Amino acid sequence: MHVQLNPVGAMALLSQLEVDRLKNNTSSDAFTLFRNCCLAVLNVGSHTDSSSEIYDQFKDFDVNLLARERGIKIELFNPPESAFVDGQIIRGIHEHLFAVLRDILFFHTQLTHANRLDLQNSDHITHTVYDILRNARVIDSAVEPNMIVCWGGHSINETEYKYTKEVGYQLGLRGLDICTGCGPGAMKGPMKGATIGHAKQRNTKGRYLGLTEPSIIAAEPPNPIVNELVILPDIEKRLEAFIRVAHGIIIFPGGAGTAEELLYLLGIMLHEKNKDQKLPVILTGPQQSAAYFAELASFIEQTLGREALDLIEIIIDDPAGVARRLKQGCAEVRQYRKSCGDAYHFNWTLHIDPDFQHPFAPTHQNMASLDLHLEQDKAKLAAHLRRAFSGIVAGNVKDEGIRAIKQHGPFKLSGEPALMSLMDKLLQAFVAQGRMKLPGSTYEPCYQILN
Amino acid sequence: MHVQLNPVGAMALLSQLEVDRLKNNTSSDAFTLFRNCCLAVLNVGSHTDSSSEIYDQFKDFDVNLLARERGIKIELFNPPESAFVDGQIIRGIHEHLFAVLRDILFFHTQLTHANRLDLQNSDHITHTVYDILRNARVIDSAVEPNMIVCWGGHSINETEYKYTKEVGYQLGLRGLDICTGCGPGAMKGPMKGATIGHAKQRNTKGRYLGLTEPSIIAAEPPNPIVNELVILPDIEKRLEAFIRVAHGIIIFPGGAGTAEELLYLLGIMLHEKNKDQKLPVILTGPQQSAAYFAELASFIEQTLGREALDLIEIIIDDPAGVARRLKQGCAEVRQYRKSCGDAYHFNWTLHIDPDFQHPFAPTHQNMASLDLHLEQDKAKLAAHLRRAFSGIVAGNVKDEGIRAIKQHGPFKLSGEPALMSLMDKLLQAFVAQGRMKLPGSTYEPCYQILN
Amino acid sequence: MHVQLNPVGAMALLSQLEVDRLKNNTSSDAFTLFRNCCLAVLNVGSHTDSSSEIYDQFKDFDVNLLARERGIKIELFNPPESAFVDGQIIRGIHEHLFAVLRDILFFHTQLTHANRLDLQNSDHITHTVYDILRNARVIDSAVEPNMIVCWGGHSINETEYKYTKEVGYQLGLRGLDICTGCGPGAMKGPMKGATIGHAKQRNTKGRYLGLTEPSIIAAEPPNPIVNELVILPDIEKRLEAFIRVAHGIIIFPGGAGTAEELLYLLGIMLHEKNKDQKLPVILTGPQQSAAYFAELASFIEQTLGREALDLIEIIIDDPAGVARRLKQGCAEVRQYRKSCGDAYHFNWTLHIDPDFQHPFAPTHQNMASLDLHLEQDKAKLAAHLRRAFSGIVAGNVKDEGIRAIKQHGPFKLSGEPALMSLMDKLLQAFVAQGRMKLPGSTYEPCYQILN
Amino acid sequence: MHVQLNPVGAMALLSQLEVDRLKNNTSSDAFTLFRNCCLAVLNVGSHTDSSSEIYDQFKDFDVNLLARERGIKIELFNPPESAFVDGQIIRGIHEHLFAVLRDILFFHTQLTHANRLDLQNSDHITHTVYDILRNARVIDSAVEPNMIVCWGGHSINETEYKYTKEVGYQLGLRGLDICTGCGPGAMKGPMKGATIGHAKQRNTKGRYLGLTEPSIIAAEPPNPIVNELVILPDIEKRLEAFIRVAHGIIIFPGGAGTAEELLYLLGIMLHEKNKDQKLPVILTGPQQSAAYFAELASFIEQTLGREALDLIEIIIDDPAGVARRLKQGCAEVRQYRKSCGDAYHFNWTLHIDPDFQHPFAPTHQNMASLDLHLEQDKAKLAAHLRRAFSGIVAGNVKDEGIRAIKQHGPFKLSGEPALMSLMDKLLQAFVAQGRMKLPGSTYEPCYQILN
Repeated sequence: MHVQLNPVGAMALLSQLEVDRLKNNTSSDAFTLFRNCCLAVLNVGSHTDSSSEIYDQFKDFDVNLLARERGIKIELFNPPESAFVDGQIIRGIHEHLFAVLRDILFFHTQLTHANRLDLQNSDHITHTVYDILRNARVIDSAVEPNMIVCWGGHSINETEYKYTKEVGYQLGLRGLDICTGCGPGAMKGPMKGATIGHAKQRNTKGRYLGLTEPSIIAAEPPNPIVNELVILPDIEKRLEAFIRVAHGIIIFPGGAGTAEELLYLLGIMLHEKNKDQKLPVILTGPQQSAAYFAELASFIEQTLGREALDLIEIIIDDPAGVARRLKQGCAEVRQYRKSCGDAYHFNWTLHIDPDFQHPFAPTHQNMASLDLHLEQDKAKLAAHLRRAFSGIVAGNVKDEGIRAIKQHGPFKLSGEPALMSLMDKLLQAFVAQGRMKLPGSTYEPCYQILN
Repeated sequence: MHVQLNPVGAMALLSQLEVDRLKNNTSSDAFTLFRNCCLAVLNVGSHTDSSSEIYDQFKDFDVNLLARERGIKIELFNPPESAFVDGQIIRGIHEHLFAVLRDILFFHTQLTHANRLDLQNSDHITHTVYDILRNARVIDSAVEPNMIVCWGGHSINETEYKYTKEVGYQLGLRGLDICTGCGPGAMKGPMKGATIGHAKQRNTKGRYLGLTEPSIIAAEPPNPIVNELVILPDIEKRLEAFIRVAHGIIIFPGGAGTAEELLYLLGIMLHEKNKDQKLPVILTGPQQSAAYFAELASFIEQTLGREALDLIEIIIDDPAGVARRLKQGCAEVRQYRKSCGDAYHFNWTLHIDPDFQHPFAPTHQNMASLDLHLEQDKAKLAAHLRRAFSGIVAGNVKDEGIRAIKQHGPFKLSGEPALMSLMDKLLQAFVAQGRMKLPGSTYEPCYQILN
Repeated sequence: MHVQLNPVGAMALLSQLEVDRLKNNTSSDAFTLFRNCCLAVLNVGSHTDSSSEIYDQFKDFDVNLLARERGIKIELFNPPESAFVDGQIIRGIHEHLFAVLRDILFFHTQLTHANRLDLQNSDHITHTVYDILRNARVIDSAVEPNMIVCWGGHSINETEYKYTKEVGYQLGLRGLDICTGCGPGAMKGPMKGATIGHAKQRNTKGRYLGLTEPSIIAAEPPNPIVNELVILPDIEKRLEAFIRVAHGIIIFPGGAGTAEELLYLLGIMLHEKNKDQKLPVILTGPQQSAAYFAELASFIEQTLGREALDLIEIIIDDPAGVARRLKQGCAEVRQYRKSCGDAYHFNWTLHIDPDFQHPFAPTHQNMASLDLHLEQDKAKLAAHLRRAFSGIVAGNVKDEGIRAIKQHGPFKLSGEPALMSLMDKLLQAFVAQGRMKLPGSTYEPCYQILN
Repeated sequence: MHVQLNPVGAMALLSQLEVDRLKNNTSSDAFTLFRNCCLAVLNVGSHTDSSSEIYDQFKDFDVNLLARERGIKIELFNPPESAFVDGQIIRGIHEHLFAVLRDILFFHTQLTHANRLDLQNSDHITHTVYDILRNARVIDSAVEPNMIVCWGGHSINETEYKYTKEVGYQLGLRGLDICTGCGPGAMKGPMKGATIGHAKQRNTKGRYLGLTEPSIIAAEPPNPIVNELVILPDIEKRLEAFIRVAHGIIIFPGGAGTAEELLYLLGIMLHEKNKDQKLPVILTGPQQSAAYFAELASFIEQTLGREALDLIEIIIDDPAGVARRLKQGCAEVRQYRKSCGDAYHFNWTLHIDPDFQHPFAPTHQNMASLDLHLEQDKAKLAAHLRRAFSGIVAGNVKDEGIRAIKQHGPFKLSGEPALMSLMDKLLQAFVAQGRMKLPGSTYEPCYQILN
């Protein structure tokens, strides 16, 4: 099987020079990444979160770029059939492929020839995040604050999944849009629910924004409902994108990735400069998740203190209540942004410390040398903890991380015993509840807590 | 609780004279009907198909019309809370209420002061059907043939329901729109599925057309996903509307109502004048429904003959296959209509015999005097059988029918023994499979087959 | 030459019954009227205001209706070539032809089969005016008050014409829409000017509403810029349409027709019930028109009194000032309508006395028996004077009127000498200034003032 | 007077980094250029083509940039009043100001920090032209070929001006869009005419594309009808933009600038590689211009030969004929582009020799050393002649050129006597016909032809 796809979106208007530069990339590392991400996008709906399994299954899949005077085309060889309807590619997947081309390959070639950007400089990092979002056309200066970022596990049980759908439905009924990290579970449920809510309110402009990264896209491919897809280069820029486009945040039950997101958020919100910021954060789940959230809250309180706990709100088993609270929260965000002259579509005034912006490479050495003790600045502690969980996510589902673990054994984490014991307890709970891997596989921990 | 609603759609542009005439209706029978239909529309999502239960539950509900220079308003007293989100009525339900006003009350006052129409005249009946659809703005001369009418039971099991959703999803992926009789079960599943299919194909113009009638709307209220709602005055005009707007028809498992629809369709398609007509008809369900369809097919063959069977196609457990077949069918319809200069949006050339147009009142006397014997013109036989099943539907779920049964006992059906036995067998199967009433209630047959 | 045109607008959705009824009209009087109006619309741009000249010039022109299952088509034989661009009819003219079909022939057949309307009843007349406008889709409940009705002569000099363009330009710059009686001169200038003004403000929704009547359309055919055309059945309904859709009125220099319009307006606004109405009325022209307006004002004051004069404002040679005044006037209209719950798109609360609604047939006898004396109710006097000028317009440019004059000689007008002398003076001035007929022809008065 | 304007178009979505970089520009040379271009855009409608006169008249005008979290604002001090309607800036002018900011200042700062572009490289120059157009959002991959570039003088007489309007009207009636160099005369007429043509055809998407350059914008400010404005950095990139977006070209009577454009066009089209290109070129004017075109044709034939003449077509006094020819030409362009896979929105396959791409600085020395003799490659000769006329335009209306002339006296042009005499004759004719400067001023030649 063999298909050629015409360019859509920003990729429909390349110059010959840009087309040529893209073509010249075909033997680069970036191109391999591009190929893998294409496969992930095409393979949506399959039930595995192991990238290598997917790559093995579609060994004869290939992708090529065709330069035409009229623009660039993507050529697919032996793509997964599930992406097609009667020989026609599903429109949503077609768009996702060109989003992959845009963010992985085009942005990469642009950077190589790039503007004088200093990626050590905080302002330049933020500019880059903005530039990627703008280039993907997901920034619109005319929108009202209504973007709800939903975080939560890709592996959740049926009751939790139905709950995330119900929350999405209630958000949709109130005209709120959804942004998630793509992928299944808590990242798909709210979008499906909101689709029905928007339909009942006759809202045909509903936005389903997916923010992902190259190393996770295979394990958590974007559902075609995602009608705006952006691939940020690393988890740090992805988290910055989430937090700057959000007008409200929901955290559903999840594993290490969800903990990473929560720690990132709290570390930033605890900063002195952000004390006037408005950003409603709701932790929510069905009745059966009450214990999970109690555990998480206790971990937060014992590590980052009471003030961190005050930044979040836990609501159990009340989808309409969650949506109501966020609707009201969006109104407060609007008022605050207006009062300080900030844009609605991007939270420029939020201060993000370089600690949270610089990529953390989850090598065995970096993991081992994390500074994990309780008596330090709370924002610093949050930054270190965030990195610890980030490493565990990598070891669980990111290709590179998995390979490192295979080679060198589990990450070794050490630090102040009291803190280590708190972490251990939380991680054990995640494992016991099956939040680290999709059901069907037994979880082999990728970390080891030393004392 | 007390709410005032501004007019939408065609009702937003009434003249003072029209507003006054509407107001003057408030003590009429039509107004009681209007009130009951409003309640049904507001009460969507409740789990009963008994109108009187609903009326009992909301005794203090009331509705009023307010005449303003600017137009007509609907005022609601003590409406069901489920229709509201944070005190705001759901937009879809708001639109449905004004569709009820338009089709029940406004059309009624128009008819009273009406154009010289002769409702015994076949052309005038067809004109009336068209006029109601046009006034509801569901006729669009610019559309391509893609409207799939889905028939099937309001009471189906979970497996069948999921199957109807999957078929809807596959139709949506292929850009096909959905028309059903509103209500739950096989009438809601395809719309929910198509919503997701349309979203994946970035189709924001998906149409979800609901055609209902006053006497059934309480038992089968329109889901708010229905974005075009029309209430036809009686089942005959409703069936004519279905069949003239359809470019393809799906029949899911169902009970007496579904049998009525199938017999109506076959009776018309068997007519000599319609032998060149193109209209794909698919009977479909999951594997477990295979026996059901075999039974139905056998009934058709033994009553209406082999040629009737040739007009339909049975596809078991293949949602994508069904959608593919109908996509192709729509192309054939387009070609045929183009070749004979017919409109795409309304099948003017389809011949419908007066037998199928004139309202049948399901009184005990009319039911008893149906001419049920095998040796007659097949189209005639289909017309009589259609009436028999129509009466049973009325006795099951229509308010008037239920009251007649309460007063006079079950309908008595008699005729040629061979035919009566075939009917008996089919109806018994419907009862055994729980297709006559929503689960939770025991079915008390409203008919009796004499020999 | 021979062309077939597909239906557009409301005519694209007729039922077979309606198509048949239209077809059956082809030998009626209404059809002759329809043919003549079609010719007028096609012949726009020619420089004559004599219908009979046009009819003579295009003797071999004919029009036919074709009934298709898909709808009604207009077939033209030997149409004027100026309506076509490379064999394609100009879209604006195409739309105008179907407006003629809709308002002349379709509305006529509807009336024949009609709702129980009593055209002696004031409310029913107003309903009819509204119904015609609504059927033509020129009523939109979502608009803000911004419709400026421009009245003035079809025969004006170059300086005056440029002035009307400049006023239209200034109105367009301020987002105001234009409504005129169609035709050349003061009815075309403001539309052309507003087109440029709207373009500079990037307003692509500019409305150019033309309200005409069958008997004048040949003499004053609608310019294709008119993007909404309605043909009202008689001058009285046309005037009512003007005054109920207007949010502001401009009166440019003109002849008998303009005087008729002004008298109609004043007669209504003088009514006790309208004393709170907001409706800015501006008389304006270039410097050279100052004397004209002084004369008109003096006539008004001496006949209808000071209070009539207070209802209007004269602004000389200040296009931006006129537009500014009307922009502000629209805001006042908005506030007033809001305060009394009236619609923005149609002034329902304006009281119009039956005297101004009932058609006046300008026969010699009716003209001779007008009650023309000063000592009577001012509104009554305005009504009589309005009729006198209406008759003169008919005698000047309406087909029927011209034939009556040819047969019986000029109309005889008599009454109180003081009043007759005022009228005589005003009419003489119109003649002297060439306002009665297009330049190139010598004006032969169609009236005679007796003493 | 003091006004702040919110950003529109591409300027509405800048990052903080970009806003800061723009701000830091305020003392640069580019900022002075920006200020002057703003003034030119605001001062549209004034009747002078002398930049310095304008700068003198508005000495107290100033412009400032305001950095807000929400984006960049333009602040104006003492702007010309004619740009405002009741204190509100005209929307078209508002857009033009941000086009100036985008193309002059933003593009400039981008280039400074820029991608590795080599502006000596032909492909990179073409990329830059495309990038500027794309950044201005005037490139749309979905359009059909219908863009007619109109060249001609800014100083033409009334008869010629009316003719350009009539041609524009006929183009508009045929759905063709207009691109000109902005400014008055032959650059404004076609746009005004097309506005009316588009209105009659109900085309609300008419495009009026203006391509200008910083050094000419003051003398030829864009009329607000221009709804897409781009300022290219120099005349060579501007000419490349014209010729690559054109699907057809009209040349109206004009002076040195028009000759420059024609020579540029012929020089390129004469290239061997372009012999299959489709690009209809029509020279047209009213009857009185027949002699002018004869003269021009004779000059072309005697300098560039018969084959150059074959590339153009002269049509006298036939606006409809011109439009018809171009409509057909667009169809041929479409077919050609389709056949060779080229884009419709940008002619990538047209070969442009570096000779025509590299900026020519019209210094006295460069002008004096032009290689003006007949016996050379025709394309080369065209390139030299083009430069000669380009220099004369600069000396006539560009600020820098005027200053150079003031300081050093007229340019000295020398070369082969036969050629010089042909040039002299042509230029004398332009002077005699008043095509070098706007009426009201006496033309002082900025050149001297030596022998």
